[in-house]
Amino acid sequence: MNEFIYEIELKVRDYECDIQGIVNNANYQHYLEHTRHEFLTENNVSFSELHNKGIDAVVSRVEIIYKNSLLPQDSFVSKLNVVKQGAKYVFNQVIFRKGDNALCIKAKIEIVVLINGKLQKGLDIFDKLLDNNK
Amino acid sequence: MNEFIYEIELKVRDYECDIQGIVNNANYQHYLEHTRHEFLTENNVSFSELHNKGIDAVVSRVEIIYKNSLLPQDSFVSKLNVVKQGAKYVFNQVIFRKGDNALCIKAKIEIVVLINGKLQKGLDIFDKLLDNNK
Amino acid sequence: MNEFIYEIELKVRDYECDIQGIVNNANYQHYLEHTRHEFLTENNVSFSELHNKGIDAVVSRVEIIYKNSLLPQDSFVSKLNVVKQGAKYVFNQVIFRKGDNALCIKAKIEIVVLINGKLQKGLDIFDKLLDNNK
Amino acid sequence: MNEFIYEIELKVRDYECDIQGIVNNANYQHYLEHTRHEFLTENNVSFSELHNKGIDAVVSRVEIIYKNSLLPQDSFVSKLNVVKQGAKYVFNQVIFRKGDNALCIKAKIEIVVLINGKLQKGLDIFDKLLDNNK
Repeated sequence: MNEFIYEIELKVRDYECDIQGIVNNANYQHYLEHTRHEFLTENNVSFSELHNKGIDAVVSRVEIIYKNSLLPQDSFVSKLNVVKQGAKYVFNQVIFRKGDNALCIKAKIEIVVLINGKLQKGLDIFDKLLDNNK
Repeated sequence: MNEFIYEIELKVRDYECDIQGIVNNANYQHYLEHTRHEFLTENNVSFSELHNKGIDAVVSRVEIIYKNSLLPQDSFVSKLNVVKQGAKYVFNQVIFRKGDNALCIKAKIEIVVLINGKLQKGLDIFDKLLDNNK
Repeated sequence: MNEFIYEIELKVRDYECDIQGIVNNANYQHYLEHTRHEFLTENNVSFSELHNKGIDAVVSRVEIIYKNSLLPQDSFVSKLNVVKQGAKYVFNQVIFRKGDNALCIKAKIEIVVLINGKLQKGLDIFDKLLDNNK
Repeated sequence: MNEFIYEIELKVRDYECDIQGIVNNANYQHYLEHTRHEFLTENNVSFSELHNKGIDAVVSRVEIIYKNSLLPQDSFVSKLNVVKQGAKYVFNQVIFRKGDNALCIKAKIEIVVLINGKLQKGLDIFDKLLDNNK
């Protein structure tokens, strides 16, 4: 696996936890998405502006392995790298709990690009972004 | 793959859709979880009561393939079956859009059981439930 | 207060509950919004299609009194009526728990209409809808 | 109104926005709750630990006036103060957009304390916290 090229630190919000007292499994996808979008922002690409131009990056496949649960008040670091495989942008993402540095989740998120609903071989702006972050 | 043994019909709620105008990828995990919990309820097992007894079924791995996006107002059918593999309960889940019967997502969700935080080989009540639904 | 003119029955989903084991306070706003949008649908008005035409109904004020908490597995009935006050559409909404018919919340939600971001005195299609439901 | 005694800076996450391209009205309640809980944390009070001791602070009334919508990428500052009125802790909360400092929402959130489900006249730890922050 490549080195991680981007990371942000976030903190669990109590409403993200469910009756088990841990972050609900679906909310990790929110963390992962937010990390990808912040990575784009950092590289001057806006997810919402892309959408307004008819360009939509959509998730085509998600694989998440859950190792340790995040709890109320936990801070965590969310890291990613990304490679291109055919028409797909494959993000490798991990979340580590701060404090003990425990691995919470490990994920592989595949993204494809649609323009006006039609599948593309990629997007120049993304390919350039990958080149710049090699 | 086994036949599906349980299904429910649900309807997209507008707040589940994001700026792309489609159901946000994380919300499918909510649909999948709700389907599993309703399946338990149908079999007289309460997820929240289990938690109150110190028994937690937690997601250990998620794999979701996204095929067609659900839109505002779409109704859909969420189906599952489940098999035991070692200590894991593996749910095969699909969501079909009503109307055109298009496959929206296909998912494999692995669940393990923790009692007071300690991994179990399974749970009698779940094993029985699987037997009853064969 | 006028009679309620629309109601739907819904069921709590476990992920809507927080670490207190009750539906999180914010999620009632989701229930209330979904009820209003289903009321529109019933009257052949689509919230998302309105948006696509540049017409946005937005919440300008919310008042919610919380009486009894909804719990996992609870079914509930969500009711509304609506009156026009100046440029505002004022929805009176209540949620009753099924079973014991306990009042869970009582809410007053004020909506205004923006066309391309500009405040309107109302919307013909809404005014007609109010007339038809008197 | 008293001076604000606590503030945090947060940033909109894209998934918090709905098909109108703005933060969904319900999500402001999440921001408000998170601000209150971070205020507690800052004062060495843990919402989740209180729950584990059978002490639940629950929302009894919410009033939110929506002035300007938060958009994808917006950063904002969330501020609060709190006074006691009878058995209620009344939080005055505001959210300002960074950049132009526009007022987004103005809210009054009333909280009561339940111990094992029974309404209390207040909670010593909260009363002390209010004294310390005068």
